[in-house]
Amino acid sequence: MPLITPRTLKGFRDHLPESMLQREQLIDTARCVYQSYGFSPIDTPALEYEEILLGKGSEETDKQVYCFEDHGGRRVGLRFDLTVPLARFSAQHIGELGTPLKRYQIAPVWRGENTQKGRYREFVQCDFDTIGTKSIIADIEIALVIHDLFIALGCESFKIHINNRKILTGLLSSLGIEDQTVTMLRCLDKLSKVSREKVAEEMLATEGIKKEEVASLLALTEITGTSEEVLKETQSLVTGNAVFSAGINELTQLVHGLAAAGVPDSRVHLDLSIARGLDYYTGSIFETFLDALPEIGSVCSGGRYDHLAETYTKTELPGVGASLGLDRLLAAMQEIGALEGTPIAADILIVYFDPERSDDYLQLARQLRLSGLRVEMYVEPKKIGQQLKYANRRGHRLAVIAGSEELEQGVCQIKDLHTGVAEQVSLQGGYDTLVRALKQKLAD
Amino acid sequence: MPLITPRTLKGFRDHLPESMLQREQLIDTARCVYQSYGFSPIDTPALEYEEILLGKGSEETDKQVYCFEDHGGRRVGLRFDLTVPLARFSAQHIGELGTPLKRYQIAPVWRGENTQKGRYREFVQCDFDTIGTKSIIADIEIALVIHDLFIALGCESFKIHINNRKILTGLLSSLGIEDQTVTMLRCLDKLSKVSREKVAEEMLATEGIKKEEVASLLALTEITGTSEEVLKETQSLVTGNAVFSAGINELTQLVHGLAAAGVPDSRVHLDLSIARGLDYYTGSIFETFLDALPEIGSVCSGGRYDHLAETYTKTELPGVGASLGLDRLLAAMQEIGALEGTPIAADILIVYFDPERSDDYLQLARQLRLSGLRVEMYVEPKKIGQQLKYANRRGHRLAVIAGSEELEQGVCQIKDLHTGVAEQVSLQGGYDTLVRALKQKLAD
Repeated sequence: MPLITPRTLKGFRDHLPESMLQREQLIDTARCVYQSYGFSPIDTPALEYEEILLGKGSEETDKQVYCFEDHGGRRVGLRFDLTVPLARFSAQHIGELGTPLKRYQIAPVWRGENTQKGRYREFVQCDFDTIGTKSIIADIEIALVIHDLFIALGCESFKIHINNRKILTGLLSSLGIEDQTVTMLRCLDKLSKVSREKVAEEMLATEGIKKEEVASLLALTEITGTSEEVLKETQSLVTGNAVFSAGINELTQLVHGLAAAGVPDSRVHLDLSIARGLDYYTGSIFETFLDALPEIGSVCSGGRYDHLAETYTKTELPGVGASLGLDRLLAAMQEIGALEGTPIAADILIVYFDPERSDDYLQLARQLRLSGLRVEMYVEPKKIGQQLKYANRRGHRLAVIAGSEELEQGVCQIKDLHTGVAEQVSLQGGYDTLVRALKQKLAD
Repeated sequence: MPLITPRTLKGFRDHLPESMLQREQLIDTARCVYQSYGFSPIDTPALEYEEILLGKGSEETDKQVYCFEDHGGRRVGLRFDLTVPLARFSAQHIGELGTPLKRYQIAPVWRGENTQKGRYREFVQCDFDTIGTKSIIADIEIALVIHDLFIALGCESFKIHINNRKILTGLLSSLGIEDQTVTMLRCLDKLSKVSREKVAEEMLATEGIKKEEVASLLALTEITGTSEEVLKETQSLVTGNAVFSAGINELTQLVHGLAAAGVPDSRVHLDLSIARGLDYYTGSIFETFLDALPEIGSVCSGGRYDHLAETYTKTELPGVGASLGLDRLLAAMQEIGALEGTPIAADILIVYFDPERSDDYLQLARQLRLSGLRVEMYVEPKKIGQQLKYANRRGHRLAVIAGSEELEQGVCQIKDLHTGVAEQVSLQGGYDTLVRALKQKLAD
């Protein structure tokens, strides 16, 4: 039979051990932070009925969904995000689970989109949301989780950009142009990519939009200063509009809550221009930018939505949440050197010399593992040079080296694979001395 | 628009928080054990080219693969196991990664099979394999990982059933019936399900099989005793067959290696009848049974295969590994009560009374989290009864209760939600007293 070329599909990737260890570490950190706020994990199937998936995002999204007919003739599709499954899940289980439902889900999603610009057709999303409450405390918590997450990841320099959709819609309604809300928000969303003039031009080209209205909208986006200053100045822009006031009020509570919880104002950036394309945000909006790499865009975004599951249930299910872009963040952390050292499954390699004494090595490995050390025994009695080359490639930190003669004498060597320095340790009377020495070196 | 019924596909499941926390704990434990032996994680795409997936298992497996045409007109399919992707991955990356490659992969697989008998169409496999070596040390390690895994999971009573395919094929060849190997092994595999007589009958019905040959084969499966006794008796059955001797030799080394590494012989069961249906096993074979629930079948199985990636590469890639059946094991552990208590994301609930003082509660939660505690603040200022009901349903262990008056006085209450006992703690001069008291109660 002719050989089949081993290859992955365009837009799909294998994750090799080194990058996968980093991914696992990052996911562990995210889970820890989510749980420390009482968010619990859920999981949903990769495949859903097509009718569940389609018509929830844009037409463009619909085209990207991997849809097909299953063995039973059902139209099914691979999920393209974790929000639609959450909506379906909530409609189905909220009666049993009760509200508030604080859940996270870390899982792959699939989109058959253009693979240019480093986009992948399979990528992992890390979503966390609180469902079933309109309390501003839930909004504050989402921002706090984002904050704690980046601190826990060792990224101290970042900014959470915050807005409230009601401020924008309130302003548009006070100007009498609420019927152009979607177009105006789309224009505003481009501010980070194209010039102010270009955005103004595009706004003016919209039916029924006047110069003064454009000026008012753009003025909103130019307010700078501390959070308190921005709030104060914004507040003065519009009077007598209930939606606008509600937005200001929510944003104020959010800012105060973050300050009370110890988030320095330097990490909070009120950015009244961010609208986020998705139509379903109705209140708070969050984006997160790394100071060292703002150009890669937001690495954690979300907001409040009040109509999560309306296509599935008449029960009102408001929610607020955000999604961490695992792949984008990992790429960014690699670029700014925030991922230190080579991650490794086991720190210690036991060099294996003599097949006649394999039981001694197995016992040694066992004893070290029982003391909590992560230890790999090389599987073949090859030349020491070859075994140490393997260790260097894999990234082991220490090697334990003992030939038959040394085992006879009850000694072994610990070799630091970074410095090359070796030290002899006694095995007489047990493994305690060795364990202590290894732990000491790993802690250094 | 009419509502869409929120539902999952037949054979697919949502995982709710409580069961998902247990799944995550089990996966964490597996990862820890795998890594402690130097196995590193990899991941591969859920979707592969159809030609990669089909023709690797049986015709029956092929029929179960979810195949379809993607947006670019490629024939693609969802992986139905992690072994085929591992073969493809190894052929593609082994040059870069080098051997031995010790990898684990924990990921869902999809099979459009009959959903009767509690089988699911989406389930998680936890595979660990060592690729690129024929060393028996690698076989020993797979058994050791299985052993350590069940100990780490708190299942102390289990048996690893071990065999070596060469003993069976050697015996068949010494009997001159090697051309009926596959049929004979399939018959033997049924021994755990149907009677000895029925198996003998089926064997006899095979072309060219005589009564004495059936007797010899069945005699092999009836040898009992300690591992040493079984080895000794088996060895005497056949002389002058090299394959048989190699099998005995490998099994002997495996048994000695496990003993040297401290595995009690009571957890090792040499079972010379197990062949495992899959044709590709060539040496050691492993199955794992829980003493309390043998009838659910093996919860961790695997073995040695010498031709992993032969459809993709001419490089010889022998390997040995096993797969933990996460869903089956979780179901078993639930049944035998090995999963203690309700797992919970955050242990502590802060009751939230007064919206005017929300900043105080946020600050309190923050301080407790900074001390390493996992703390959920209730998101709405509802009645205390409602909040404690929520805590009871979710499984929180402690509630921190402080109304405006108590905050004013600088005190709060810790309520043990299991016993109902409450204790007053001072908040004067900081949160240290509270943190100490909470940690003390959680440690109790």
